[in-house]
Amino acid sequence: MRVSAVLMRGGTSKCWVFDTRDLDAVGGDRDRLLLRLYGSPDPRQVDGVGGATSTTSKAVLLAPSATPDADVDYTFAQVGIAEERVDWSNNCGNCSAVVGLYALQQGWVRPAGETTRVVVRNTNTGKTILQDVPTPGGAPTNEGDLVIEGVPFPSPGVDLGFTRPAGAVTGALLPTGRPLDRLDTSEGQVRASLVDAANPTALLWGPDLGLAGDETPAQVDGDPRLLEVLGEARAHASVLMGIAPSAADADRVSRAIPKLAWTAPSAAGDQGIQGRMLSMGRTHPALAVTVSVAFAAASVTGGTVVPSPADGGPLRIATPSGTVTVRAELDHAGGLETAYVTRNARRLATAELELPGAGPRLCSPRAHSAPR
Amino acid sequence: MRVSAVLMRGGTSKCWVFDTRDLDAVGGDRDRLLLRLYGSPDPRQVDGVGGATSTTSKAVLLAPSATPDADVDYTFAQVGIAEERVDWSNNCGNCSAVVGLYALQQGWVRPAGETTRVVVRNTNTGKTILQDVPTPGGAPTNEGDLVIEGVPFPSPGVDLGFTRPAGAVTGALLPTGRPLDRLDTSEGQVRASLVDAANPTALLWGPDLGLAGDETPAQVDGDPRLLEVLGEARAHASVLMGIAPSAADADRVSRAIPKLAWTAPSAAGDQGIQGRMLSMGRTHPALAVTVSVAFAAASVTGGTVVPSPADGGPLRIATPSGTVTVRAELDHAGGLETAYVTRNARRLATAELELPGAGPRLCSPRAHSAPR
Repeated sequence: MRVSAVLMRGGTSKCWVFDTRDLDAVGGDRDRLLLRLYGSPDPRQVDGVGGATSTTSKAVLLAPSATPDADVDYTFAQVGIAEERVDWSNNCGNCSAVVGLYALQQGWVRPAGETTRVVVRNTNTGKTILQDVPTPGGAPTNEGDLVIEGVPFPSPGVDLGFTRPAGAVTGALLPTGRPLDRLDTSEGQVRASLVDAANPTALLWGPDLGLAGDETPAQVDGDPRLLEVLGEARAHASVLMGIAPSAADADRVSRAIPKLAWTAPSAAGDQGIQGRMLSMGRTHPALAVTVSVAFAAASVTGGTVVPSPADGGPLRIATPSGTVTVRAELDHAGGLETAYVTRNARRLATAELELPGAGPRLCSPRAHSAPR
Repeated sequence: MRVSAVLMRGGTSKCWVFDTRDLDAVGGDRDRLLLRLYGSPDPRQVDGVGGATSTTSKAVLLAPSATPDADVDYTFAQVGIAEERVDWSNNCGNCSAVVGLYALQQGWVRPAGETTRVVVRNTNTGKTILQDVPTPGGAPTNEGDLVIEGVPFPSPGVDLGFTRPAGAVTGALLPTGRPLDRLDTSEGQVRASLVDAANPTALLWGPDLGLAGDETPAQVDGDPRLLEVLGEARAHASVLMGIAPSAADADRVSRAIPKLAWTAPSAAGDQGIQGRMLSMGRTHPALAVTVSVAFAAASVTGGTVVPSPADGGPLRIATPSGTVTVRAELDHAGGLETAYVTRNARRLATAELELPGAGPRLCSPRAHSAPR
């Protein structure tokens, strides 16, 4: 049996994009279907199309929207690698960037001028993402000249507007009601802002744990004790945010949320901040788009670990892959209306994936005997 | 522009398979074409179809054979990841396992009974590989029940026979004329058998460097000093085997050959041996097929670091992913006629890859401006 899928890059992630209706046509359990296509569970995903890293084992399910307010319904899945599990609990900001381009390339949305706005409804969070996609000469293009940090080749840019991103999962921007909490770890307490914008995120004040926010991924991932302490902070945050009933349950409930990030003042003296984050227990090579939205939300909320940009301009966040810039647009009450991030996206391949049958056909004995 | 390609797994490797004629039709420089399709140079290959590891950044080029003695002409390419370079100097044994199945699935070879023999000519080495592929009911199948070490899912088995594998690159089984050499390193000399079978391989006697041959990949890759010493041994071997003019040139001439492996007696007391190897400077998760053939060749050659199996039976090699079994068939003069290894293979996806144009089309300014 074969399943149609398109391999796309959105920002610094690679994801396989499925027409939701194609997966429905296969039937059966959707988690099992994705796990087998990706070759999971297997740390190398060698017998499937997964890329064996958290940023390359992602699935995007798309269909023309069932609601009149949106063009496309978009569901994100983080497909387990060594773990036999699919996590549907959150959105992926980088993967979001492929949705408008795909919808235009598939003919689901009609181009309107040089740039076409595609309204995307993310079903994981119930939130809307506005996407402005280049359609030069009135047609979508797979070629562009926008370069972003972490991707060495240019491609078409996409402006993403995360509208009213607060409370995506927990219902409130500050699920604890406080801009600042203290999380328990075996190395003492760490101050943190627990923010639910785009995705629930625990933003730690790094210096409380001796972190300057300029750590390299190798430094962090090579320090099992630090990863343990960060995991403790995440587990405690999960409980305070109402996601897990107890710290011991946090990983079981979701390894993906809350996101865990830490910050500190920028060493460059440019009024920016440092930003580092974990993704599925390892340091992210850059910063997830949804976490940069959480940073933006915190920056316009008094009393958090993230300062407001001095001039009311964009927030500059230094990541392992360079500087990410986010802009927050406020509503009349001073709350966060929309957070804008620029990404790029490209279709890499159009494919038919092979799905092995329920029971393998028997080979002839000769073919799988010991070497003759 | 689009290029047809098939993603296949052969043993513990994943490779994209191209019809050589399709690449010729694209024209231009073949190295540049593959590098761009794979997203190289980039340590993450995020804008292409490469898998960002040495075992998932491989290309297989196939065409019906130009010679009457073979069915298929097979060329292997190791596509650089962070490095802007394609290495055509050697064959990949794991990728070899996809050739017969692909040729049958494409209709290039007509099935003959329950198992079909496909004769493959590897153009990198000029050597012939016999492949016995299951064709139950007279048709190729993508479903099978053979499980090999390092791959958690079953698939069709393929028996690979590397015929007269000696001298594939250097022209002689023992390019130095000796079964045992001593290689200089900054930690002293290490005994080694420099064997050219399937691929040129330096088989070190591990205990000379304090290696028991049961090292985990993490132990070796986390020890920069050890990697340096192993690199010195490889460079010296490259000179002795006539591949590089000087040790300083070894990496420039080829990072892929000679292969570097080390062995020691099995701790299990089962008369087997330990086998570990580097691939592109990192520990291989198992053992390359071509290196297991080199082990087999050494085992039937007196005076090497590899003992003959006591009972004249198969050679059992313990690798990080389990035991690999190789069988050597001798000719009348006692030389190596054919080395047999069993692998499995599966088609994972049939695709059209997007090749970005020479000059990207300009996006509308709005689409790649800073966030609004």
